[in-house]
Amino acid sequence: MRVTVHRRAHFNAAHRLYRKDWSFEKNDQVFGKCNNPNFHGHNYELIASVTGDIDPETGYVIDVKILKDIIKSEVEDAFDHKNLNLEVPEFQELNPTAENIVVVIYNKIKKHLNPDFDLEVTLYETPRNFVTYSGE
Amino acid sequence: MRVTVHRRAHFNAAHRLYRKDWSFEKNDQVFGKCNNPNFHGHNYELIASVTGDIDPETGYVIDVKILKDIIKSEVEDAFDHKNLNLEVPEFQELNPTAENIVVVIYNKIKKHLNPDFDLEVTLYETPRNFVTYSGE
Amino acid sequence: MRVTVHRRAHFNAAHRLYRKDWSFEKNDQVFGKCNNPNFHGHNYELIASVTGDIDPETGYVIDVKILKDIIKSEVEDAFDHKNLNLEVPEFQELNPTAENIVVVIYNKIKKHLNPDFDLEVTLYETPRNFVTYSGE
Amino acid sequence: MRVTVHRRAHFNAAHRLYRKDWSFEKNDQVFGKCNNPNFHGHNYELIASVTGDIDPETGYVIDVKILKDIIKSEVEDAFDHKNLNLEVPEFQELNPTAENIVVVIYNKIKKHLNPDFDLEVTLYETPRNFVTYSGE
Amino acid sequence: MRVTVHRRAHFNAAHRLYRKDWSFEKNDQVFGKCNNPNFHGHNYELIASVTGDIDPETGYVIDVKILKDIIKSEVEDAFDHKNLNLEVPEFQELNPTAENIVVVIYNKIKKHLNPDFDLEVTLYETPRNFVTYSGE
Amino acid sequence: MRVTVHRRAHFNAAHRLYRKDWSFEKNDQVFGKCNNPNFHGHNYELIASVTGDIDPETGYVIDVKILKDIIKSEVEDAFDHKNLNLEVPEFQELNPTAENIVVVIYNKIKKHLNPDFDLEVTLYETPRNFVTYSGE
Repeated sequence: MRVTVHRRAHFNAAHRLYRKDWSFEKNDQVFGKCNNPNFHGHNYELIASVTGDIDPETGYVIDVKILKDIIKSEVEDAFDHKNLNLEVPEFQELNPTAENIVVVIYNKIKKHLNPDFDLEVTLYETPRNFVTYSGE
Repeated sequence: MRVTVHRRAHFNAAHRLYRKDWSFEKNDQVFGKCNNPNFHGHNYELIASVTGDIDPETGYVIDVKILKDIIKSEVEDAFDHKNLNLEVPEFQELNPTAENIVVVIYNKIKKHLNPDFDLEVTLYETPRNFVTYSGE
Repeated sequence: MRVTVHRRAHFNAAHRLYRKDWSFEKNDQVFGKCNNPNFHGHNYELIASVTGDIDPETGYVIDVKILKDIIKSEVEDAFDHKNLNLEVPEFQELNPTAENIVVVIYNKIKKHLNPDFDLEVTLYETPRNFVTYSGE
Repeated sequence: MRVTVHRRAHFNAAHRLYRKDWSFEKNDQVFGKCNNPNFHGHNYELIASVTGDIDPETGYVIDVKILKDIIKSEVEDAFDHKNLNLEVPEFQELNPTAENIVVVIYNKIKKHLNPDFDLEVTLYETPRNFVTYSGE
Repeated sequence: MRVTVHRRAHFNAAHRLYRKDWSFEKNDQVFGKCNNPNFHGHNYELIASVTGDIDPETGYVIDVKILKDIIKSEVEDAFDHKNLNLEVPEFQELNPTAENIVVVIYNKIKKHLNPDFDLEVTLYETPRNFVTYSGE
Repeated sequence: MRVTVHRRAHFNAAHRLYRKDWSFEKNDQVFGKCNNPNFHGHNYELIASVTGDIDPETGYVIDVKILKDIIKSEVEDAFDHKNLNLEVPEFQELNPTAENIVVVIYNKIKKHLNPDFDLEVTLYETPRNFVTYSGE
């Protein structure tokens, strides 16, 4: 019996959408007000969803405390109250769009999980805009 | 890397569930208070979910502003503050159940998208009743 | 010790904003798309808040089941899946704006309560537009 | 056209996570404060999602009232305001983790549905911790 | 300039509504299924609202971290994953209705605050049932 | 009959909590990670609540479209996707704590309202931290 265990978390961060190798005009045309050089920010909400077999001994797929701790060390401690462009190594050369952030978070969490588990990550940039990635 | 981009939108509308070719009694038996001839209404909430590859240049699957504009012209402008039975052409002969509405919305959005994109639409009739369609 | 007990409820209804004694043009100018003659609709959410002393015997200000039953008979049974303009007597001559609806609901609930209780009613027309009335 | 119809419901219950055949110490080590012998509790939120073809006659996949009634008799009447460990037969020998509860709920609902329908159940133990099961 | 600072928190607990000095029948008549002797439970959500003058030096009324720590020690550590009737001293002789719980929480938080501050506490027993107390 | 009309809006912004006239160490001690010199950010949610008499002609206290337009020009256009410290004149010398931001927003909206109206503004910095100001 494969069940999915979901854990919700959140972090606040500043970011700016742009490519260093493009002119300001081109960045402005493509990214609009998200290209503000002084940055803007979001309360990001995150759902990490782990699918696996129920352990018949404990009744758990994964102890939610373990998943919570992975999210804390890999995502919250790394991103919360940070400037994604300036302070998070993964975005030094990678534009911090919601799509790119969710892939980075997926990879940071996935490496701590039993390979038998499937992972899907949903990232809310705002309550109206969100993205999902499951490693495909 | 295939990522899903979700955009939430909403519209308010009146509707009535019934078939013109059924008697009032039969409509009443099948659709209950939803068959009120004077109509009732909902704040419909909509999530359009577009799945595709991340464009390595921009970091976007699809610019959310493009998706927002498609939803605005195809759904909000067409349905908001309308009577679905009387004023929306798609429901002249089609009973505006949540199931039928979500299929109509799917088709209206899908035709504007790159065919490489997958689309899924979720429509909330109320916070407790909602439907999903992905073209299958 | 005066404590406030809140109970949330909801109903779906159709309505139209207009005055019978105004021209269509004037109604249109004042009420815009809310003046659609074919009606539109909402999922109304309601919070009834009753303030009174805690009964030292039961630990209740008011048994929530009593409040729930008052809301059911006075509001849900009277308004749910109805056309407010055509089917609800209170709005035969009264424009069903959120402001007028909340006053009507306040009066319908208040008459069932112990006069020592204060009442406040909040009515959500949409998650972004809502009104509050407390009898002042 | 296969559409998914979702219905949200809820129940409140007390529970304790532990195995009768383990020592208190082992239960404590594995289940932490969830092993409180005096129980703790939750407002469980439930989404039952039924996927099937739209009936071209009614425009329904399944009448939501039917789904609502199945959930009421199989889940709400059976679990609401109950102690899952002491009063719900399914958990006499089964640890009431969210994973095990969602499988039990899935089985209780599935047997009432047309076998052509797919079912998925999501169970929120808290707004941050939830699980999903679809019979695989 | 008096501003109110709100902090939201939550805890899970089991409880039972009854009076030791009443018969089971009387408790059952007054408290219904909330009188289940095996307990039931809730995810309680809490909002503590502190009103005071903005400190012109820091721009804070109260550092939210201080308020968060008071709530943690006085409410979360004391109530979370507990059986209110059996394990929380305040409810040994006091029926743990939402009204009584909110007054207890108010008193536990208030004693840590500068007396110039006003306090209001809102406690959600469920998303539909909640109570507010401000010391009046 | 005085009724309160509430309108919800939102904006995203970056900010940093600090005083220019304090050392980095003192800022760090008082404002912790909110003093990150590279900024962090939030999805701010705003509720503007206007209290006044119902106009017996229209049934409105204030046309919500008017309130929506005031919020758009005074708050959304001025703050959205901005760095509050660097780009918003009001915070050149004022620390952008939630308390100070809500007072600024109150003053920007209040000047556009009929003086007979009362105004209250609630500002969510995160879903768990929010503030309210009503001009007292």
